Amino acid sequence: MSRARLRDLGIIIGVMPPGPCNAITDVPGVLVGHTTLIDDSPYVARTGVTVIIPREDEIRDDHAFAGYHSFNGNGEMTGLLWLDESGLLGSPIGLTNTNQVGVVRDALIVHDVENFESRGFKLPVVAETYDGWLNDIDAFHLEEEHVHQAIAVARNGPVEEGNVGGGTGMICHDFKGGIGTSSRIVESKSGTYTVGVLVQSNYGDRALLRVDGVPVGRAIGPEIVPLPWEEPPQGGSIIVVIATDAPLLPVQCRRLAQRATVGLARAGGVGHNGSGDIFLAFATGNHIPADLSVRRTLEMVPHEHLNPFFEAVAEAVEESILNSLTAAETMTGYQGRTVYALPLDELERIMNRYRP
Amino acid sequence: MSRARLRDLGIIIGVMPPGPCNAITDVPGVLVGHTTLIDDSPYVARTGVTVIIPREDEIRDDHAFAGYHSFNGNGEMTGLLWLDESGLLGSPIGLTNTNQVGVVRDALIVHDVENFESRGFKLPVVAETYDGWLNDIDAFHLEEEHVHQAIAVARNGPVEEGNVGGGTGMICHDFKGGIGTSSRIVESKSGTYTVGVLVQSNYGDRALLRVDGVPVGRAIGPEIVPLPWEEPPQGGSIIVVIATDAPLLPVQCRRLAQRATVGLARAGGVGHNGSGDIFLAFATGNHIPADLSVRRTLEMVPHEHLNPFFEAVAEAVEESILNSLTAAETMTGYQGRTVYALPLDELERIMNRYRP
Amino acid sequence: MSRARLRDLGIIIGVMPPGPCNAITDVPGVLVGHTTLIDDSPYVARTGVTVIIPREDEIRDDHAFAGYHSFNGNGEMTGLLWLDESGLLGSPIGLTNTNQVGVVRDALIVHDVENFESRGFKLPVVAETYDGWLNDIDAFHLEEEHVHQAIAVARNGPVEEGNVGGGTGMICHDFKGGIGTSSRIVESKSGTYTVGVLVQSNYGDRALLRVDGVPVGRAIGPEIVPLPWEEPPQGGSIIVVIATDAPLLPVQCRRLAQRATVGLARAGGVGHNGSGDIFLAFATGNHIPADLSVRRTLEMVPHEHLNPFFEAVAEAVEESILNSLTAAETMTGYQGRTVYALPLDELERIMNRYRP
Amino acid sequence: MSRARLRDLGIIIGVMPPGPCNAITDVPGVLVGHTTLIDDSPYVARTGVTVIIPREDEIRDDHAFAGYHSFNGNGEMTGLLWLDESGLLGSPIGLTNTNQVGVVRDALIVHDVENFESRGFKLPVVAETYDGWLNDIDAFHLEEEHVHQAIAVARNGPVEEGNVGGGTGMICHDFKGGIGTSSRIVESKSGTYTVGVLVQSNYGDRALLRVDGVPVGRAIGPEIVPLPWEEPPQGGSIIVVIATDAPLLPVQCRRLAQRATVGLARAGGVGHNGSGDIFLAFATGNHIPADLSVRRTLEMVPHEHLNPFFEAVAEAVEESILNSLTAAETMTGYQGRTVYALPLDELERIMNRYRP
Repeated sequence: MSRARLRDLGIIIGVMPPGPCNAITDVPGVLVGHTTLIDDSPYVARTGVTVIIPREDEIRDDHAFAGYHSFNGNGEMTGLLWLDESGLLGSPIGLTNTNQVGVVRDALIVHDVENFESRGFKLPVVAETYDGWLNDIDAFHLEEEHVHQAIAVARNGPVEEGNVGGGTGMICHDFKGGIGTSSRIVESKSGTYTVGVLVQSNYGDRALLRVDGVPVGRAIGPEIVPLPWEEPPQGGSIIVVIATDAPLLPVQCRRLAQRATVGLARAGGVGHNGSGDIFLAFATGNHIPADLSVRRTLEMVPHEHLNPFFEAVAEAVEESILNSLTAAETMTGYQGRTVYALPLDELERIMNRYRP
Repeated sequence: MSRARLRDLGIIIGVMPPGPCNAITDVPGVLVGHTTLIDDSPYVARTGVTVIIPREDEIRDDHAFAGYHSFNGNGEMTGLLWLDESGLLGSPIGLTNTNQVGVVRDALIVHDVENFESRGFKLPVVAETYDGWLNDIDAFHLEEEHVHQAIAVARNGPVEEGNVGGGTGMICHDFKGGIGTSSRIVESKSGTYTVGVLVQSNYGDRALLRVDGVPVGRAIGPEIVPLPWEEPPQGGSIIVVIATDAPLLPVQCRRLAQRATVGLARAGGVGHNGSGDIFLAFATGNHIPADLSVRRTLEMVPHEHLNPFFEAVAEAVEESILNSLTAAETMTGYQGRTVYALPLDELERIMNRYRP
Repeated sequence: MSRARLRDLGIIIGVMPPGPCNAITDVPGVLVGHTTLIDDSPYVARTGVTVIIPREDEIRDDHAFAGYHSFNGNGEMTGLLWLDESGLLGSPIGLTNTNQVGVVRDALIVHDVENFESRGFKLPVVAETYDGWLNDIDAFHLEEEHVHQAIAVARNGPVEEGNVGGGTGMICHDFKGGIGTSSRIVESKSGTYTVGVLVQSNYGDRALLRVDGVPVGRAIGPEIVPLPWEEPPQGGSIIVVIATDAPLLPVQCRRLAQRATVGLARAGGVGHNGSGDIFLAFATGNHIPADLSVRRTLEMVPHEHLNPFFEAVAEAVEESILNSLTAAETMTGYQGRTVYALPLDELERIMNRYRP
Repeated sequence: MSRARLRDLGIIIGVMPPGPCNAITDVPGVLVGHTTLIDDSPYVARTGVTVIIPREDEIRDDHAFAGYHSFNGNGEMTGLLWLDESGLLGSPIGLTNTNQVGVVRDALIVHDVENFESRGFKLPVVAETYDGWLNDIDAFHLEEEHVHQAIAVARNGPVEEGNVGGGTGMICHDFKGGIGTSSRIVESKSGTYTVGVLVQSNYGDRALLRVDGVPVGRAIGPEIVPLPWEEPPQGGSIIVVIATDAPLLPVQCRRLAQRATVGLARAGGVGHNGSGDIFLAFATGNHIPADLSVRRTLEMVPHEHLNPFFEAVAEAVEESILNSLTAAETMTGYQGRTVYALPLDELERIMNRYRP
């Protein structure tokens, strides 16, 4: 369902090179799977669920360090209390719509119960953005099975973007939004690592959209591409998931998470009141076995080597948001409403006009 | 299912007077409802859900200020990001078991969708403790309907304690725990108010239990009352909900929430690693209408008048925990395991021995 | 010592109108005073102190609500624990260099002791950025008296920018930085208010500097304007102070504070490891008398009306940073080092080239 | 100036064994030094400064991990933003009175400048409690030299308690308070470590004081030992510093810091509004060299092994507070006011009465 990626249009964000897929899956072991629900009867479904698996086959027994940042907490991300207390992430991450965070959360526990012998205590991480404009959200389409499907199809390699998975019905800067991803190769004094980002974009006003600093949103007024609404509803949001294979500590993951704000701000986000702008970062470079018999030996990138990681996050978040816009196609949904895609030809025309 | 309340045994915690029911429902407008699931086939159910309605009939349209504190975040409480960002609580609060936070959360949204015309954005607050020792938690007994039932039976007046609702299968200081409640009348320089507390207790070692400072837990060794286990599982917890009718601001609710630590510490809690000790406080003294057409006029108790509120929280939390222990009855559940109630005669004997 | 303001160059940031002085002092009652120390013997002094008085003559007896955000906490701002706990600000704010936060902090207490009868408990707010490149910071030039001078000259009306007060020796995006200020008039559904910002800018790489989205920093390479250093030292920073006369609650001040990140990101900040990027917001629209005899009556702008405030903060922070750059003059200091000012003609040339 | 230690009176707190000195200095490499100022003219001085050096001779070049918790933030502890952001502690810790945090903070920088070649960026940690009842605090007695003296006399081995250093003029539970210390040997599944605690106690009401659960404060009414005042002033506080030689991560230090609340609550603290109850924990088991050329290799005690550390903190904090009370002697100070010591014979009599 992807139309194009920003780089295909010759638009480059930042100065750091992306990984081979320019996707969160460039971080070794990270998998992404989508279940997309598009239906018109009996209820209008434009929704889904996306699952990110932080460490293939092993996250349950070999945790990753993690941290989060809430730029504007008008949203839900479950599992944060323990993630913050312990610095650990030990389960897949689910992204879905606001009303069905619960079914996705419990389904991740069911998945664990059904696939592993040991019973235990689980606190899954599930986040949401609100798709009630295009999706009949109060019809509660998602079922446990859809989560299992998303896990089953989770893959490394290229990631589908736009109107897929949790991003299916999302709207960003008054254009069709959804899933976007990007990555950067980080050359630090501690070695070469990958930073990958995946966003579920559903925030923002048209007029504030910028592409590499160019005020694209102001240049594409409602007379060129209609707005989806006269007055936007409360409840836009953006979820950002950041992955790296560097051996970062929890406090460092939290620092990376907050840098998502930079990429979001560059693209035109200001953290509007109704927006749940919540950022999660995890680092797989250390291994935290569930086997407790021994003290763990870890590595730590010195804080003083983190600047290229910070810049990588900013670049990859900005590009992920823009990829969600260039990928997503125009969609008509609930009550016949239409949300238009960002017009790619217009985008290129504007970029050329603003660049010397 | 309640055996006794601590005060019935002549044991008084602190120096402040309780309200008429010595319960969270002494705060005007606060309702509590339980759905209790006890079954032996096809699966062993010892679980349930408790719902606290912060402002009868109105919380949806007339929010309360709120704040939270995590003493040890090894647990889940949904809805905290927005509660922290905005200082607002706008929905009922659910308490249940770890694996079914999701179904309870989504059910609170369904309840809203079914009972009110307007569609909207909801971020319900649902917390949990782990009842997997007595309850076959991986059988996922709870369904949406059980949440609706708990809302339907929510009442003011006396609150059932012990093996009811979300507390049905819980274990506290190696005795049978569960739901407990208490309240205090606060005479402050800003006027007279009520502080009410409800806990779902599921934490703690036997040896650390104290009643009004007396080391009751050390005095009731395994030879007197058997422990439930040889090595306790990870995953005990205590959820504390604090209500007041005073006009407190969000920052002040957060301060009250943290004072639950004092009552918990007095009873013998230390915030063990596996314990999700999460405290929520809300204040109904200000009215925050969902109607946004006007600025709100508020009142604020000066910070300098808060000390009696802080002491009231400490006393009522300590007494709520002890009420959960004196109320709960011995229970046999999953895999034939038995958890014994705190023996009341032994308790009285010890208290007399330690008091001059 | 100001060369120019950004608007004088015809460069407009954002879409909201500034107040009459385009300064933090547009918020009624807010005063700013600088003491600037420039000397070459016996030690090279390029430093000073800036004082912001939140409510003229009254802040001591009539507190303001306040909140803060740390985007990257590699810096000091004293007084934050109580500000966060209580939501209150009750004293002037000092800005100075890293090594002399202490003398400024204690001097604010001395000022209080000398000017008011009552003895009491004070927790002043003093923040810093590191000027050790141009200033012989280890000579500890500042004395108590300099703080009293800054208070004595604090005024409303236009604010001197650039190489003054706490900003005297600061460096921003590898150009000469320092003090900058800006304001916005906010038309909200709750009424018309002013948002004012003052920054002490001392952060950032040349290559990342953007002006209204235009990559000005990349366009002014070292061959055009030399960099101050081969490898920048750890320890850059930016302090942002945000003022408004709207009746915001503490949680809302904290939300405003975090929006400074947006303006900073637009200008090219990424929160580098060595940077103390700390943001304070206060709101004078409510009156919190030190007289505790009565409950306080307050007003509150609904959260749903805050979006224009958020955008105002973003715009005013971006413009304040740029004003610090256009105002500051080239300075030679410690060990003969020179830091060059942002060349205004070059800036205008680049802006014209990048705008259609 | 110490009268006695609690254990000398046969009163044992908890079940874990103390280290050889029952002091924070039992943690290898931790040093403590006091400068005590007691004078009656020209101004009444009852104040001082205490310095804790986390790693003898090396903390500047070999940082420790650290974390903090604010139980009630009505106080100052400088340096917390970077400590929280980075998880690092790289300098001595100062404890003093409220009005002179600044001079102590800057003096720690001066000490560094004078004793080490390299210039750099320092963010020292200095905390305070308010001694203005016994000390003429507005006379600002402390000077830079007093800080250098405290560093110069810093030692391992036994630590003087009571009316010394920063604790000289402090008041606790309406008795004479001040410096107290204690330690515990922790047998964990990850090995044997030491937890040491030092407090500067200056909080609390008489009626709330408990010793091992016994309501000692209620039993020693004003008719037995006069209260220092009719209405206590705002501004009591307690600073707690926790040290361990275990290899804990920053998130784990923060967890230890919060457990100080348990010890404080057991002794009778409730976090009154005017109290700055601020807790810092550091762990020297990992080495974080300032030399940035290499990635660091670390060890980590699994979270699941932390319970004995948590209990050790609770016990050692409770005992440290009580040691400050049993050590401190009756003091007369500013305006002829007298604060009485906790009477040891009365204490023993009460303890015997309440114990079977």
